Amino acid sequence: MRALMVGRFQPLHNGHLSVLRQLAEASDALIIGIGSAQYSHTEKNPFTAGERHLMISKTLEAEGIDNYFIVPITDVNVYPLWVAHVESLVPPFDEVFTNNPLTELLFKQKGYKVENMPLYDRNRYSGKSVRESMLSSSDPKDWEELVPPQVVEVIKEVQGVERMHTIMENDEYHE
Amino acid sequence: MRALMVGRFQPLHNGHLSVLRQLAEASDALIIGIGSAQYSHTEKNPFTAGERHLMISKTLEAEGIDNYFIVPITDVNVYPLWVAHVESLVPPFDEVFTNNPLTELLFKQKGYKVENMPLYDRNRYSGKSVRESMLSSSDPKDWEELVPPQVVEVIKEVQGVERMHTIMENDEYHE
Amino acid sequence: MRALMVGRFQPLHNGHLSVLRQLAEASDALIIGIGSAQYSHTEKNPFTAGERHLMISKTLEAEGIDNYFIVPITDVNVYPLWVAHVESLVPPFDEVFTNNPLTELLFKQKGYKVENMPLYDRNRYSGKSVRESMLSSSDPKDWEELVPPQVVEVIKEVQGVERMHTIMENDEYHE
Amino acid sequence: MRALMVGRFQPLHNGHLSVLRQLAEASDALIIGIGSAQYSHTEKNPFTAGERHLMISKTLEAEGIDNYFIVPITDVNVYPLWVAHVESLVPPFDEVFTNNPLTELLFKQKGYKVENMPLYDRNRYSGKSVRESMLSSSDPKDWEELVPPQVVEVIKEVQGVERMHTIMENDEYHE
Amino acid sequence: MRALMVGRFQPLHNGHLSVLRQLAEASDALIIGIGSAQYSHTEKNPFTAGERHLMISKTLEAEGIDNYFIVPITDVNVYPLWVAHVESLVPPFDEVFTNNPLTELLFKQKGYKVENMPLYDRNRYSGKSVRESMLSSSDPKDWEELVPPQVVEVIKEVQGVERMHTIMENDEYHE
Amino acid sequence: MRALMVGRFQPLHNGHLSVLRQLAEASDALIIGIGSAQYSHTEKNPFTAGERHLMISKTLEAEGIDNYFIVPITDVNVYPLWVAHVESLVPPFDEVFTNNPLTELLFKQKGYKVENMPLYDRNRYSGKSVRESMLSSSDPKDWEELVPPQVVEVIKEVQGVERMHTIMENDEYHE
Repeated sequence: MRALMVGRFQPLHNGHLSVLRQLAEASDALIIGIGSAQYSHTEKNPFTAGERHLMISKTLEAEGIDNYFIVPITDVNVYPLWVAHVESLVPPFDEVFTNNPLTELLFKQKGYKVENMPLYDRNRYSGKSVRESMLSSSDPKDWEELVPPQVVEVIKEVQGVERMHTIMENDEYHE
Repeated sequence: MRALMVGRFQPLHNGHLSVLRQLAEASDALIIGIGSAQYSHTEKNPFTAGERHLMISKTLEAEGIDNYFIVPITDVNVYPLWVAHVESLVPPFDEVFTNNPLTELLFKQKGYKVENMPLYDRNRYSGKSVRESMLSSSDPKDWEELVPPQVVEVIKEVQGVERMHTIMENDEYHE
Repeated sequence: MRALMVGRFQPLHNGHLSVLRQLAEASDALIIGIGSAQYSHTEKNPFTAGERHLMISKTLEAEGIDNYFIVPITDVNVYPLWVAHVESLVPPFDEVFTNNPLTELLFKQKGYKVENMPLYDRNRYSGKSVRESMLSSSDPKDWEELVPPQVVEVIKEVQGVERMHTIMENDEYHE
Repeated sequence: MRALMVGRFQPLHNGHLSVLRQLAEASDALIIGIGSAQYSHTEKNPFTAGERHLMISKTLEAEGIDNYFIVPITDVNVYPLWVAHVESLVPPFDEVFTNNPLTELLFKQKGYKVENMPLYDRNRYSGKSVRESMLSSSDPKDWEELVPPQVVEVIKEVQGVERMHTIMENDEYHE
Repeated sequence: MRALMVGRFQPLHNGHLSVLRQLAEASDALIIGIGSAQYSHTEKNPFTAGERHLMISKTLEAEGIDNYFIVPITDVNVYPLWVAHVESLVPPFDEVFTNNPLTELLFKQKGYKVENMPLYDRNRYSGKSVRESMLSSSDPKDWEELVPPQVVEVIKEVQGVERMHTIMENDEYHE
Repeated sequence: MRALMVGRFQPLHNGHLSVLRQLAEASDALIIGIGSAQYSHTEKNPFTAGERHLMISKTLEAEGIDNYFIVPITDVNVYPLWVAHVESLVPPFDEVFTNNPLTELLFKQKGYKVENMPLYDRNRYSGKSVRESMLSSSDPKDWEELVPPQVVEVIKEVQGVERMHTIMENDEYHE
């Protein structure tokens, strides 16, 4: 059985990791979709799909997990096409893990088995809280302890914190 | 004379119907454009173009009106192309009915005759008020009396109220 | 039961009409998709989606057929998205009529019932043969007898034969 | 040395002109990119790329400046592609002038020399302040004195103030 | 009176130059559209829009012609939108020069005055003949005498002949 | 050092495998780009990106190779954007392996080190020869011996040979 799970991973955090560990354990192979793959260098999506790919693969390698596929998935912005778009990009799968009611509805309409994702502390671990901490904390440990150490490495390699500060100053074109 | 009228019909309501009746009466043939055709499953655009097509045609059939064309029109998001885009999709027409000043400007610039649409109670009948009532009312009659009975049927056939509640819980990707 | 049939109708000819008559008879409602809807003014696609809409509706009106929906369908050029794209544009349907093996495969994979279309003389009646006759015959009757009289009217209204000759002289930009 | 500077010029104002004068003086040739070129007829982007082209060229002609290229640049909405997109549209260049930190980052990553733009009174001269004055002032002099006289001419030629009032009444489709 | 003329200019040759001289003379201002602007690095479109812009402006500067606008125009691949697309990108114009019957038809349908372009020896001067000569001649003079000397300079600056040989060896992906 | 290699893998064959083995050996990590990722169900591109992902990962797993990333890369059809597009999708890399002169030129222009790919018998092993053999051979062994056994498995799982025969009968829309 191959299972699918899609996230934006901006960036991958310890909550994600806890989910990935359990899903990889529970399935023959786990397909990890990187959503909104075409976006980067924005407040909500600072990292490229390639950088997120690296965060996930380095972390899972350190965890000793190897039964997974990572697939960048661009947004199509038209919901009724979304399931077919995902199907065209990833290996065939039988089951979908999600906590999002609309994702659940769309995959169920196409006949997929849909399951809830395992729980973790979503107040503490979320992409938004990590990004806010990267921008506002004087102590890097504040955000570094929310993510796996391999993610810290990747963010340092690409000068991610500096990039986020630059993005926040962006006001598009000079008016 | 063929006349054009474009709306989003999310969903078709009694105000629309009153307009359609009068315009169909006043023209040899009425072209009914379904705007923002590519969108669905969102708060502002819950229904697909096909579902809206069905709402309109079932209602007009019950009304005994048959001198019309229904044409889904996708958004192009670039105003100067909009009139040419509409022209490429619908049968040739002579006259446009709209209450929107920008639509009026764009069609007049291309040489079309533009007329105001007939009046109705816009506070009571609007797509927004119907959608809000579908989400918040405990009594389905509250929204059902704002739309033709054929629209109620279509919305029930596609489980539209349940879909709208699902859409409202959507927070895109799991962060 | 609603049935779907998709064609390019460049232009609608007597073979199409024979098929439409039989399918409209055999189903509660027939959804007629106008394929490659965004194209026009080319050798293979001379007429706009709106002009083709007009050809079909005028012809069916003259035939006394009224249990149909006409829906322009733009090409997406990515086969795995095609069925979902069609589903998002047309009213819900149960059955698909096609003689194309790939269309059959794609709809069957999504669980639709697929049937072959009724037969007619495809050597005599085809969009290609009508278009070639419009360009090469000295006697307009040669192509006019291949299409319903309402199609002749529409083609004359939009000066379609002249347009086709103009298209054939097109060599894109001046080199 | 060819230098690049990109702005939206909605519309060109005296602050822009002061910058253009200094950059044209400082470089062999100045490439002036018109950003967000595909948009017009919106509150933030009222004028078409062609109208903005005309504002700039008429003004620079009156100034006796002639060592420049004007190039409309459509938005691609994907930051990592932006520099390559600009490179494909404009003549080769060596240096970029910008005050935007993200633009600076993106061009520096591709090896370009990036300089700050000359200063002017940004509270007084900005596209936003000109557009607001066009909409709210009873005396046209209020906005006319913020822009070069050639820009006043172009805006009158295309009935720009009337267009902006029309745009503000736009509520998209009739609900 | 502003006049419009659109070409691909792959590359600008002496036939184009003869036309530009006469049209610039005959109009208050000549808008020169660079068609198929998004393409480059292919057999039919070896040069980028920016490189073609440079060829034209350097040549016209040497000719002492300065009453022109150069505007890159991307293809939209949907004919009925083409005139509106051009209108949105270039300054307002009154007259169109073309020898292409379809371009003539499309602009006339929108109410423009359309004139034929001045004649020159099209067998000798064409983009195709220049490109073929660049690829096949052992003596660079064979192609250099077909284009203005400023075009030779630009092609040398960007190593255009080497690029064309590289393009011809391209077989897309390694199969 | 991370190295990049892009192919269409329609399907993965023994020549590809020989290359992948050598490149994985020669680099710290090999990024394998699946080109033309959005296409499938056509003569030249029968398999989806997900199916090709599965072919590669199953084969490399059987080979005991694990220092690689697989990334689907959609075509952008505009060469000057191609390198930036790849960069946005894949993890950072230092070196590119290709035998295609245009790919070499484009990556070298952006400062990458480019190397030729290792040799193998390209007459015997090519996507085209495998696809032709799948369609024409009466004995499945003819194509099965050109590809790794894991690819045979995947093609059987998705009924690939049947799909290819269906594709060949496709004549688009019924004319």
